This record gives sequence, structure tokens and C-alpha cells, in this order.
Amino acid sequence: MTHRPSTPLLDRVTLPSDMKGLSDRELRQLADELRAETISAVSVTGGHLGAGLGVVELTVALHAVFDAPRDKIIWDVGHQCYPHKILTGRRDRIRTLRSEGGLSGFTKRSESPYDPFGAAHSSTSISAALGFAMAADLGGDPGDAVAVIGDGSMSAGMAFEAMNNAGHLKKRLFVVLNDNEMSIAPPVGALSSYLSRLYAEAPLQDLKAAAKGALGLLPPPLQEGARRAKEMLKGMAMGGTLFEELGFSYIGPIDGHDLDQLLPILRTAKARATGPILLHVLTKKGKGYAPAEAARDKGHATAKFDVLTGVQAKAASNAPSYTKVFAQSLIAEAERDSRIVAVTAAMPDGTGLNLFADRFPRRCFDVGIAEQHAVTFSAGLAAGGMRPFCAIYSTFLQRGYDQVVHDVAIQRLPVRFAIDRAGLVGADGATHAGSFDVAFLANLPGMVVMAAADEAELVHMVATAAAHDDGPIAFRFPRGEGVGVELPARGTPLALGVARLIQSGNRVALLSFGTRLAETLKAAESLAQKGLAPTVVDARFAKPLDRDMILNLARNHEALITIEEGAIGGFGSHVAQLLADEGVFDRGLKYRSMVLPDTFIDHASPEAMYRIAGMDAAQIEAKVLQTLGIASLTKRA
Amino acid sequence: MTHRPSTPLLDRVTLPSDMKGLSDRELRQLADELRAETISAVSVTGGHLGAGLGVVELTVALHAVFDAPRDKIIWDVGHQCYPHKILTGRRDRIRTLRSEGGLSGFTKRSESPYDPFGAAHSSTSISAALGFAMAADLGGDPGDAVAVIGDGSMSAGMAFEAMNNAGHLKKRLFVVLNDNEMSIAPPVGALSSYLSRLYAEAPLQDLKAAAKGALGLLPPPLQEGARRAKEMLKGMAMGGTLFEELGFSYIGPIDGHDLDQLLPILRTAKARATGPILLHVLTKKGKGYAPAEAARDKGHATAKFDVLTGVQAKAASNAPSYTKVFAQSLIAEAERDSRIVAVTAAMPDGTGLNLFADRFPRRCFDVGIAEQHAVTFSAGLAAGGMRPFCAIYSTFLQRGYDQVVHDVAIQRLPVRFAIDRAGLVGADGATHAGSFDVAFLANLPGMVVMAAADEAELVHMVATAAAHDDGPIAFRFPRGEGVGVELPARGTPLALGVARLIQSGNRVALLSFGTRLAETLKAAESLAQKGLAPTVVDARFAKPLDRDMILNLARNHEALITIEEGAIGGFGSHVAQLLADEGVFDRGLKYRSMVLPDTFIDHASPEAMYRIAGMDAAQIEAKVLQTLGIASLTKRA
Repeated sequence: MTHRPSTPLLDRVTLPSDMKGLSDRELRQLADELRAETISAVSVTGGHLGAGLGVVELTVALHAVFDAPRDKIIWDVGHQCYPHKILTGRRDRIRTLRSEGGLSGFTKRSESPYDPFGAAHSSTSISAALGFAMAADLGGDPGDAVAVIGDGSMSAGMAFEAMNNAGHLKKRLFVVLNDNEMSIAPPVGALSSYLSRLYAEAPLQDLKAAAKGALGLLPPPLQEGARRAKEMLKGMAMGGTLFEELGFSYIGPIDGHDLDQLLPILRTAKARATGPILLHVLTKKGKGYAPAEAARDKGHATAKFDVLTGVQAKAASNAPSYTKVFAQSLIAEAERDSRIVAVTAAMPDGTGLNLFADRFPRRCFDVGIAEQHAVTFSAGLAAGGMRPFCAIYSTFLQRGYDQVVHDVAIQRLPVRFAIDRAGLVGADGATHAGSFDVAFLANLPGMVVMAAADEAELVHMVATAAAHDDGPIAFRFPRGEGVGVELPARGTPLALGVARLIQSGNRVALLSFGTRLAETLKAAESLAQKGLAPTVVDARFAKPLDRDMILNLARNHEALITIEEGAIGGFGSHVAQLLADEGVFDRGLKYRSMVLPDTFIDHASPEAMYRIAGMDAAQIEAKVLQTLGIASLTKRA
Repeated sequence: MTHRPSTPLLDRVTLPSDMKGLSDRELRQLADELRAETISAVSVTGGHLGAGLGVVELTVALHAVFDAPRDKIIWDVGHQCYPHKILTGRRDRIRTLRSEGGLSGFTKRSESPYDPFGAAHSSTSISAALGFAMAADLGGDPGDAVAVIGDGSMSAGMAFEAMNNAGHLKKRLFVVLNDNEMSIAPPVGALSSYLSRLYAEAPLQDLKAAAKGALGLLPPPLQEGARRAKEMLKGMAMGGTLFEELGFSYIGPIDGHDLDQLLPILRTAKARATGPILLHVLTKKGKGYAPAEAARDKGHATAKFDVLTGVQAKAASNAPSYTKVFAQSLIAEAERDSRIVAVTAAMPDGTGLNLFADRFPRRCFDVGIAEQHAVTFSAGLAAGGMRPFCAIYSTFLQRGYDQVVHDVAIQRLPVRFAIDRAGLVGADGATHAGSFDVAFLANLPGMVVMAAADEAELVHMVATAAAHDDGPIAFRFPRGEGVGVELPARGTPLALGVARLIQSGNRVALLSFGTRLAETLKAAESLAQKGLAPTVVDARFAKPLDRDMILNLARNHEALITIEEGAIGGFGSHVAQLLADEGVFDRGLKYRSMVLPDTFIDHASPEAMYRIAGMDAAQIEAKVLQTLGIASLTKRA
């Protein structure tokens, strides 16, 4: 049993409605208790810590002032929502975060009416909030819409698109810019133009006057806070023109850890806003927990940890992560080819490109949360003679799909896509699963699509991509650690469209694409012990297919089963098309294609997710027996 | 033989290098001749007229000042590039525009070294130009990078992402904002802050001084132009803060039809720029051709026309367009269901939603070129109780793919996707083909995917979508006119996942998904006349599949052939997966899947494109015979 903090006030709050009678002083205490409870919970579950700690006061203020679930509070990305979950009826399950059957690590509509719009990918909140606002305007669900979006998320194109549209529609809408780095719109000397606009814009004038009025009503002990809030209102004049040019009223910057500022400003904004309004709130990631504040990443994501010391539990590691193997292989290739550059969309650590940037600072580009630009920027680099590796997680590459088609594939430009987090990813759940990349890439003319079966294969695939100048090429690899095979001293380019025979057997051929190869081999081993030794092949390529190998397998086996960590439409579909075209099905073949099931699989351990997906060794073995029409086999002595 | 304008100066210019010796006065004459030649060419070919006429002077100025192909001039979208093509070695083929084997209607790398980056979709040019700029900086192709982007294209998120990145990287880069509507960043009262920054930013100071100096060197007859250029330079103080906050130096607005402004400004900018610079150029779409200037759309796209009168050749129309049928059906549904709203991303005319907006102005949203936002905004509307129809062309829906997955499908929100321009589209070529939507939508859990076989089916599918509240649904339909069937008075919701038996036959079943049904029926008719009457089924649904129907077809026929206007991974792949799962292939079935070939098909007539794709009636008939192993059949007397 872990230590639980004393939370007498929080214990009385199950839902936001329980906060309505609390004084501002009590709300401050509630925030302190909420912070302690958040730290305690994440120490047990692991997960995103720093972001939640940064918005403890903001969470309390929003729920104190707005009326959820009638009002829609939409957390961008959603990884900062643990305090929100604690205050909205989910405290009793908060120590199940990110585990199978437990709470999601993000907001989720199916989990609670207090999560009006789920998230996990960034920069969607303003679009969603604007949708709620316009729905309310047209007689749909009533209530205010509040988007809470970080400064990083604000840099994505779709946030700009939403701001641009909201400014045009001019409806009441709240956007809270949760700025923990000052990376957007630093205060500039726009004082005079801003002041002149203050007089021209009645709503904002009203707001300012009303804020002053609200401050006047505050009880004496808050005078200091009131003074600071007045300072803040004066500070409104120091920035925000970028947002104002997009049609928003701008208020800020506000100290996001000072409820004496947050509460009166939010109350006034709620009482008076008539159009879109941007509240610029300054927060500190990891606020209030010394080990997080001291960490380089401000406690962004953490394993389970000891609350007193902040020391994280570390799992014993047997093999390097695929991410690290990719980064090191890319560095090795870049040492030999000065045309190689690397592009990441705000994920230098996650993609391993931080290591590349350390070695080649000028040849590494972090373009921000901007996958569309990342892909076309890579295409431009390629057209200009460079050889870019565009490293984007499978799920986020969906953001740049048109650019892959239109700017890379149609032009046959040598952009190399390094697709991390392919397949199921565990605790981050369905939103982060890399399920669709093989399907949406392998049907693009001229695209080469590979999947690494293990970390040594990944080294070779990086070399293959580096050697491939005739058009685009993509290679996918999973989250987590490799299988522990020995790494080659140097990658060797693979022959395009040539598969790898792992072991010859009979009756059934197992054709694996990607890292399910390990489970496939386990299944084969188990079957062999029972007298049925399958042939096992690592396909390596979904495109181009190894036609000769596949047609030979079909000719020489009773059954052919493909296995891939991806949805229908990918590798197996390409194999089926080949077999159909070649008339193989005419004469009969027990063909099966094991793909991810037609469901979004919720967060769980990776092992559990593969079990749910029907993709572990036992299930592969079962598929073999079922396909061959064998009820069961017994292990031979 | 059509009338050709007299173009003595243009006749001497084959490549931009031929312009280098021309005086500014001659360049003005060249522009006039170029305009006349552009009008003459488009009168013969049809195509995009207004955009090209708007940039005649800009095209001349850019090629006079910059050194293409060493310098990379990148036209956003590319539909304004006809004058550019005339000046860059392609005048001899300019009257082949958009026809099979002729010039593309967009920029295209494979067509000319003067097209350093192809386009057709909007808003890619800044990303590409930044790629070229950084490549040059790293030792790749040398030369300046110039993006020419319209004000509409600038509103898309990816343009913002690129500006944001360019402002951060601070490298020399030219962005010409071709503003023909003043819809972006209208001059605001930022005079004082701008002036104070002028003194702080030396490069821009230099530039201004240099521009003045350049003007001082102009010969006397240009004094009026020089005076206006000075006015313009003063006007620099009136806008651009939005761009400056993104790290760009801003110059403008510049009269884009006045070479006396354009030439000195561009020369000075080229001589002095050290970082990213935005040149704000005001132009008029359709400039210099009265019929275009007078048209509501400023001659955006036109059929062949008579140069003297501007009267367009009109093809006789037998049936309403699918687009119009969609719009009228949606209006009918919206009359009955007040929750129905419509969303378009800057294509109100193209999607037919202009008609919907006329009837329901408050319920129609044009969000600008912003497909990412359009999809998530629709998801927000749906979560707020509305029933949005999100109308996006197949090829542009690729821009919102992650939002379809993450915001719509995972949340099972009732967003209805109306996918126009599905399949091959003719003169707009490969960039506009709607080839991938079935594959990238049908593998999303919970998504319903339909394709209309004719315009009456489309009416029913709109009704089906309107009646479907349990999650997302998509229906695709092609460009152009319907087949001429009678339209039902009212749409009737279809049973989900139920196919439509068109005619019963034997030996072979033809299972069509979408508008290839007409050609399939032609093939069937031809075969029947030769004694082989196939079964023909309109699948209606790619998801959910009509399992019973398909398994029955497989059981009762020697061969089963699917036909769809889409790439591999879509309908046929889902059918193959079903057949494999059910063990149908175990006992043998002549199964074939006719999909779009693994190539990007260049512009041609739709009929030619289908022939190239192997999807016309004769080719379907040939596929049947080949599958059955029949060398040939003769028509019975």
C-alpha cells in the first residue's frame, strides 16, 4: 500500500458541482490537495506527470468557474488531464491509469461526460471547441466551449486553421493558451496600437472594466492578488497582436498558478465575452513537485516512482530500443553520405534524432508539431539534392498523408520515411497505435515499404533506405526494445523486394512482415515439436513483394498465412492481390491473412494488446491448425 | 486555325535567359504579349485562365530578376503557371495543355527543369522552397528559392507551419504573397510598432534604403512609377505584423501589375535579403481580359472560348452532375432534419454546397483551405448534437486523414463524408485523382463506406448517411455528369451492408463497387450476346460487406471479379479477406480484383484514363475471358 496524502477538502469533492460552494481560499487548498493526489497517483501508475502538475490551478479554476459537463472543457492532447479526471468522478479509479481496463491516459468520450471530446494527438481542441460553439448556436447542446491548448500544440497548422475560422465566425469561444515556454508570441512593443484598439473594441473594454469591477468585490485578504491581477490586465497591452489579427480578443499573460488571478479573470471572461477570446496563461510544467521541476523534461512522462525521492522504478533492459538503433544507424550512414539530413516534427527525443542532432546539428531539423510541413519540407530538401530521413511515428504520419502522396510519391522524390511506433503501442492506447501505415503507403505507386523483423534488420533497412535514390522508401519498426539479436557492425543494403527464408518446412508457410516474426517463430517451434514444421519467411518488403518467393511458397505448401501488425489493406492484401492475379486461388490454396482486428484496441500492456489482437504465438499456432483443419496436435515425447 | 496574337518580342524569348538583355520598357511589352498569348492558348485548350492572367507581370518580373532554373521559382497550386510555361521553353506546346500527352495544367518536375517542384494541391510552396533553401545552405543545389503563394493558399495550416519554421531558421527565402482579394492581413493600425521595428531591423532598413537608391537610378519617364513605388514603400508601414511576428521581413503592398514597382523591389530584395522575406503583391485575377474580369469567378476555370467575345463552348449536357445531385439531395434531407449542417474547405462551388448555403446560410460552413480543421470541426459539431456532412474531394480528404481516424472514427462520431471527385478525374491529372479513399477509410473500425453506382444511388446514399447516427459514414461519387437515370422523388435509406443484385447469370459474377457499374454492364451485355451471361452485382458497400451475397456469389460461380475505381487495399482487398477467412480459396475460386494500376496516371480525357487504367467495358470483358481461360468468344447470330 503506497502512501496517500491527506486530502480532507478533496475528499468532499467528487464532481465539479461539489466545488461550487467553496470559497476562493478553499479552492486554493483544493488545488494543493489535488496536486498531492496527482503526484501520489502517478507514482503508482507512471504516466504523464509534468503536464498535469502544470495545470492544477487552471483545472480547479476552470471547474470552479465553468459548469461542466454543460460547458465543454476540451484539453488539447489530453495528457494533462489527470487532475481533471480526479475532479470529475474518476478519483476512485485514478490509480488504474493506462492499465488494461483502467482509465485512459487521455481524455475519452466513452469514459465520462466530462470528457466532451477525446484527444491524444495534438492541436485538435480549438477545432472541436468551435464545433461545439457553433452547434450550441444552432440549437444543439447548449453551454460554453473552452479549449485548453499548449504553446507547442498552438504551432501546428490545424490550430492556426481553427483560429482563423473562429476569428471569422466571431462566436463566443474560449481558448486558453497554456504557455509553459513562452515559445509563441512573446510580448512585443505593440503598446500603442493595442491601446488604441482597446478603445475601439467595446467587448474588450467591457471586459476590462468588468474585471476591475470583479476585483473590487474581492474581500480584503485578496488585495495583493487583486493588485497583481490589475498588473496583469495592464500586461494585456504587451502582446497578442498575432491573435488579434486572427480576430481574437487577447487577455494575458496570466499567472497560471495564481488562483487570485485566474478566478476573477475567468469569471469576468465568462460573464462578458461575446466573441472568440484567447486567455494567455503562463504555467510551469512539473510545478510543485521538486523532482519534476528539476528534470530536464519537467517530468513529462515517468515510470512509477518514489514520491519522497522522485526516483523512478527502472525495468531491466536487455536490448537497445529500436529508436536508438535507428538513430545510431542513421548517424553511421550520415557519416558516409553528407547529403543525409533528418527531419522531426517536435519529437527529437521520441525519434532518437536528438542523438543525430548532437552529431550533426546543422543537418537535423525539428520543425515543430507540423507533420504536413515536415513531409513537404523533406520533399523540398530531396528536390534540392539532399537525402532526408523524415522520422515520424506511424500514427502521426497520418497528419502528413496528402503530402506523402502529392509531394513525395507523385514526384518520386528520394525521401526516406522512418516510421517508429508501428503496430500496437501499449499504455498510450488506440490513438497512438500505428495500424494503418502499411495500407496507406503500400498502395502508392513507386513507394518502397519495409518492416524490420528485429533490430539487426532495422540497421540493414536504414542502409537500404540510404542507398535508395530512385524514389521514396519507408521502413517501419515498433515501440520498445529489440529482441536482443547481435547488431551488425555496419548495415548492408538489402536487395529490393527480396524476402528472407528463415526456415524450410512443409504443409504450411508462415509469411511474416515485421516484428511478429518472433512470435511466428515461437509458434513454428511449438508446432515442430508436435511434428508439424512450418516454413517461415520474413517478407521484409510489402512493396515490392518478393513475387517469386511468394508464388513458390504457394506452390509448395498446402497453406500460406501472412502475419503483420497492421490493419487490412496492407501486406496481406498485396499478397492476396498477387495470388489472385497469378491464378493461384483458381486451383485452391489455404490462404489466410492475419491482420489487426477491426476494432480500436484500448490501452493495455503490449502483450495484452497482442493477445486481444489475436497475434501472439499461441494464436498463430491456432490459426495454423484451424487453417489445416487439424483439431489438435500433441507434443511428441 | 485560331487567331494568334502578334507577339514580336515574345517570339524572341524561348527561355528566361533570352530576357536578360531586355530593358524594363521591353519587359512591359513582353508582359502584354505574354498576356495575349496566354488568352489565345487557353481559348483553344480551356483550363485555368484567371489565375495566370493575374500574374503575367509577376511572372515576367520574377524571370527577369531571378535566374531560373538555378533559382527555384515555385508556384503554389500551379494553376497560374501557364505564362511561366510560355516563358520557359514550352510555348510550342502550350496549346496542348491538359490534353493527353500534352503539357500538364500544373507545374511538374518531369516536364521541365524550370518546374523545380510540382504542385496542384495548395499551400505546399513555402515548405518546398524552405527545403530548397536549406539544401542550398548545406551544399545541395545552389540558388535562391522563391515561393509564390496566393492569399487563399496562405490560410492553410501547412503554409503557417512553413512560415513558422522559416522564421525560426532565418535563412534567405523569398515568399511572394500573391494577394488578389486582400483576404489575409489587411493593413491594420500597427504603424508605430512597425516603424519602431524598422529601426531595429538593419536588413530591412538596408533594403528600404537600397530600394530608394534603385529608384533614383531610374530614367526620367519612370518618375511617376517611382513616385508610386515610394508611396508603396511608405505603405510598408501599414501591415504585415502577422508575418513579422513569424520572423519574416515584410514588404508591401506592391502593385502586382506595375513592373515599375515589381522590378526594382525584386532586384533590391534579391540583392540585399539575408533572411526570410515576404513580398506582399496585390493582383487582379483575370487582369487584362475583360470577359474574365467581369466574370463572378474572374475566369478561374474555363472551357474553350472565343477570344473576341469570351463566349465559352458548352458541351451538351444530358444529365445533372453528381455534385448537383448531392447538393439537392442534401438540401432535401436538411429540410427534414434541422441537425444537418454542411462543411466545405474552400470549395463551395466545387462541392455544390453553394446551393446548400443559399438555402441554409447559417447551417453551411466554408472554413477555408483547411481540411484538417474541417474534419475536426465537423467532429465537434457532431459531438455537440449536429449531423455534419463534410464535403471534401477524395484527393483533398488525404489532408484530413489523421483527423478522420483520431477525431471521428475512434470516437464513433456521426460525421458524414461526402467524397466528390472519387476515381479518375481527367484533365487535372494524377494529383487530383481520387484513388486512395476506399483503402484509407474502409480499414477504419466503425466506418461505413459506400460508393454510388449512379446518380439515383447517390440520392439514396445521402439519405442513408442522413439516417445513420451510429458512427461515421462516407459515400464517394465521381466527377462529372450522371449516367442519366431517373432520379427518385426522395431518397430512401439503404440497409447497411446490403448489395444490389442487378442481373443473375452464371459462371462468372461481376461485383462492382461504384460507377464502373455502367461499363461492367456493357461488358456483361457484350458477353451475353456471345452466350456467356454474367451475374452482375452493385456492391454499394465496401464496409460493411454484404457477406451473404458475396459468399453466395462465390459458391455459385466459377469466377468472381471485383471492379472498383480505386487503388489496391480497398473494396477488393476486403472481399479477398472475407473469402480467405471463410476458406473459400481453400477449395478454389477464380477470384480477380480489378483496381487502379500501380502508376500515377497523367492527365487525359476520363475515357482515355479509364482505358489506360484497364477499366473500360472491353477490358472488363477481356478480364472475364482471361479468368475463365477462354481464348475468345464470337457473337451469336
